[in-house]
Amino acid sequence: MHSEIHVNNPRLYSFRAGSTGLWRIRSLAAVRGEPLPTAPRLDHREGDGSEAPDATAVWTLRGVTSNERYVTNEEKGNLVAVQEGLGRPAALCAALIPIRKSAAWWTLTQEQRREIFETQSHHTHIGLKYLPAIARRLHHCRDLATAEPFDFLTWFEYRPDDEPAFDDLLAALRATPEWTYVEREVDIRLER
Amino acid sequence: MHSEIHVNNPRLYSFRAGSTGLWRIRSLAAVRGEPLPTAPRLDHREGDGSEAPDATAVWTLRGVTSNERYVTNEEKGNLVAVQEGLGRPAALCAALIPIRKSAAWWTLTQEQRREIFETQSHHTHIGLKYLPAIARRLHHCRDLATAEPFDFLTWFEYRPDDEPAFDDLLAALRATPEWTYVEREVDIRLER
Repeated sequence: MHSEIHVNNPRLYSFRAGSTGLWRIRSLAAVRGEPLPTAPRLDHREGDGSEAPDATAVWTLRGVTSNERYVTNEEKGNLVAVQEGLGRPAALCAALIPIRKSAAWWTLTQEQRREIFETQSHHTHIGLKYLPAIARRLHHCRDLATAEPFDFLTWFEYRPDDEPAFDDLLAALRATPEWTYVEREVDIRLER
Repeated sequence: MHSEIHVNNPRLYSFRAGSTGLWRIRSLAAVRGEPLPTAPRLDHREGDGSEAPDATAVWTLRGVTSNERYVTNEEKGNLVAVQEGLGRPAALCAALIPIRKSAAWWTLTQEQRREIFETQSHHTHIGLKYLPAIARRLHHCRDLATAEPFDFLTWFEYRPDDEPAFDDLLAALRATPEWTYVEREVDIRLER
C-alpha cells in the first residue's frame, strides 16, 4: 500500500483568525458580499497552519504565491526596482484583503483579462505609485484542491503614517473597471 | 472550535495507478527525468480519489482544471468550434502525460511565456491540427497546497486508429522551443 505523505507546497501560506497570532485585528469589514466572522488576533505563517493549532480559530484561509500573471517584463522591472519586502521593523500595520472574482472574469481569455487589468484599469501602474511604502504579497486560492471562498488573498504591510496612502490605493483600485468583476471582498486591518 | 470541513474543488480530478480503475495501463515511460512506478490499471475520476480507495495504489496524481492561460480569443474560438469532449464511446485509448517545467520557465513573465508557447512553438496551432480526433483536458498541479511532482497533467482520449496521429502530435510538441523548459515528462498509454 502506498502511504500518502502530503508535504506542503513551499509557496503555501495560512491566515487564521482566532485568539493567537502576532497581529491584532483592528477591524474587519465586508466591502462586497458576505463578511467573515471576526476574532481578536490573526496568525499569518508559512504552511497550512497545522503546526500551531488554535482551538478558538473562527476561520483559516490559505493560498500559494505563484508566477506572474499580468505584468509585462518592463512593468516587472519597475516593480522590482522600488518594492520592499515584508517584515520591515517600522511596518507595524498590515491588511489582509481576500477577494473573489466572478465566473464572467474567469471565462475571459488571458488577453481579455490583461486588457481589463492594465489597459483599462491600470492596476500595476496604480500599485507602483504607492511603492515602496506599501509592501505586498499576493496568494492564489482558486486552484487549490479544496473549494475556497476566495480567489486571492493579498497581504499588505506599511507604517502607521502610511494608512491614508493605503486607503487611497484601495479607493483607486475599487473604482476601476476590473473591480466590476469582484463579487466578494473583505477588508481586514491589523497591527502588531 | 471551528471544524475544518474540506470540500473538494469542483474542478479537481485524480489519477491513481493501482489494481483498480477503468483504464488498463499499456505502457509507462519516462520521456525526461525520473519515471513513475507502473501498475496494472489507472483510476481517473472527479475529486481526490478518496471515495474509492485502492490499497494497492502506487501513486496518485491530482490537478484542477482552470482558466485559460495562453490562448487568444480567436484561438479559443477555433478550438471550441472543432474540439470534442471526453467520454466518446469510440475513444478506447487514452494517455496521461504529466509534465514539470523548470524554474526558469516560471520566472518568465506572462508575455515571455506566451511568446515561447505560441509565437515560437505554435503550441495551440499544433494541437488544433489534431482536432477533433484527439480530445484533451489540462489539469494544473503547481498551485495546489501540497508539493506536487508535476506542474500539469494532460489527459487525452482517441480512437485506436488515431494513435499514430497522437504520436505525431507529441513529437511535434517535443521538438518545440517550449519543450526545452520541460524538465520531467512521463508518457502513460491506456486502453479500456
